[in-house]
Amino acid sequence: MELPELLVIHPPPVFIIHQQQFSQKFKLLKAYESPLSTELFLQAHAQSTKALICYGKSPITSDILRRLPSLQLVVTGFNHIDLPECRRRCIAVANTADVFSEDTADIGVGLLIDLLRKISSGDRFVRSGIWPKSIRYPLGSRLGGKHVGIVGLGNIGLKVAKRLEAFGCKISYNSRQKKPVHYNFYPNVCELAFNCNILVICCTLTLETRHMIDKDVLKALGKDGILINIARGPIVDEKELVKFLVDGEIAGAGLDVFENEPKVPQELIELDNVVLTPHRAAFTKEAFRDAFQLVLANLEAFFLNKPLISPVID
Amino acid sequence: MELPELLVIHPPPVFIIHQQQFSQKFKLLKAYESPLSTELFLQAHAQSTKALICYGKSPITSDILRRLPSLQLVVTGFNHIDLPECRRRCIAVANTADVFSEDTADIGVGLLIDLLRKISSGDRFVRSGIWPKSIRYPLGSRLGGKHVGIVGLGNIGLKVAKRLEAFGCKISYNSRQKKPVHYNFYPNVCELAFNCNILVICCTLTLETRHMIDKDVLKALGKDGILINIARGPIVDEKELVKFLVDGEIAGAGLDVFENEPKVPQELIELDNVVLTPHRAAFTKEAFRDAFQLVLANLEAFFLNKPLISPVID
Repeated sequence: MELPELLVIHPPPVFIIHQQQFSQKFKLLKAYESPLSTELFLQAHAQSTKALICYGKSPITSDILRRLPSLQLVVTGFNHIDLPECRRRCIAVANTADVFSEDTADIGVGLLIDLLRKISSGDRFVRSGIWPKSIRYPLGSRLGGKHVGIVGLGNIGLKVAKRLEAFGCKISYNSRQKKPVHYNFYPNVCELAFNCNILVICCTLTLETRHMIDKDVLKALGKDGILINIARGPIVDEKELVKFLVDGEIAGAGLDVFENEPKVPQELIELDNVVLTPHRAAFTKEAFRDAFQLVLANLEAFFLNKPLISPVID
Repeated sequence: MELPELLVIHPPPVFIIHQQQFSQKFKLLKAYESPLSTELFLQAHAQSTKALICYGKSPITSDILRRLPSLQLVVTGFNHIDLPECRRRCIAVANTADVFSEDTADIGVGLLIDLLRKISSGDRFVRSGIWPKSIRYPLGSRLGGKHVGIVGLGNIGLKVAKRLEAFGCKISYNSRQKKPVHYNFYPNVCELAFNCNILVICCTLTLETRHMIDKDVLKALGKDGILINIARGPIVDEKELVKFLVDGEIAGAGLDVFENEPKVPQELIELDNVVLTPHRAAFTKEAFRDAFQLVLANLEAFFLNKPLISPVID
């Protein structure tokens, strides 16, 4: 029996990790390994390609969709797809992003505790061997009682909020729309920042959210304020953030994402009041196992003409 | 009006931080600044000393109590006091330890997230400048779904449990006695370790708990197991722990305390799968502010012949 074809233009991390298992179930059309240009590769497989998997770093534009007239299914980890065009063409889309939301929320809380309680900097202090020579080490700050502003109360934001409530934090949020939750809603992110000790960025990157965390928001957050970004680097105006941190105009930042990652500004690397992780919010063994299973289940359902497991459009 | 006398044999951290405020309210008798030996200092103030403050590192033994015939009150952050002798002598004891339990629980959770999700090691990775040269970085492990064993389900242990439930962890515990909680009780710490992915040490250090986390417990915890110690260093047999970590016989450790702190074994410092903080679980500005207020409130109540605010014995 012939295996169904699966197009991979650029390999998502879940594909790289579980490649062997994918290759047992599908005939893989790997554009990224072909000597042909993507354009010619797509042309070569245009008539047969029914399903593709993709992720945020390789957007599925209307141009790509136009080159694939037989396409019926897109499976993705994130939303970088021309959805209106998929709808018009009756191409089904399945999303596996929610598999990653628990782990992303955990990193948000982890960065915040780390920063307030000086865990990474304490670890540097111990490893440097200074501890026996000096009992002086600055006090941290308590998480309980802090007023935390969640920017973007979607799947991830809600999970961050739930966790921080267990630590005794007060939660408020900013979102495009007011949600049916018991947290305080601020329609303006500056006002949210002004009223909170901590901002946790959990929204998606769009034209509207690019550089949403700007000079004004940072100023409103204030000298004792803390910024956590577990969403996307360009949501924050990084040049301004660096300036505010260097000048002590905000108290600290926990950053899993950067505007031009993997490049991280040298000024950030030299600061002690920041915690910097290499965009790994969603990267756990368990998340990739779950993502693999969900991608597979969607593809299998599609090729058996059954309903998708996690449809965005079906 | 003369200020009431307050004896300080060794200064607790809360006293060091709030010394000026204490000196406005009390005539301070500082044994540790006197050219006299402690013995002679106590002798000089034996008749007048009614109240003292102390902490874990300067135990109030029956010998000290014998030298202070007028003593009526001991205010302490921790329990290193000859309580039976205090009872016999009708010396009141006030404890401020609970002020620190929220912050200590937070550090326990922080160390655990840090370790599972590689926050400190990710921070080292980013600061080293390797990220742009290498996208390979090992996956972390999900906190949700893990089975966590709390060793010592007192004030701190309960708070760790409550927090970890919000992350989707399953909680079990070992304690001298079964408690009225919905968590699974294991009367034997080895059995707890065998059934859990993670052990969080939250018990007090006593003759019975010294080296309670020994070779057998670590073996039961197993290759994928993680140990968090936010209690006291000597509860863990550190030599064995180092051996298990170096040999990969357990997966990692988050340690705020060490057997001979501030000395930390060089082998630990060289490992990437440990997070090491300099015994700062309780050290936040807010905890010391609260501790100061509680110590002061107890002393003022005592000198006004009113009931103590946080009595252990009154």
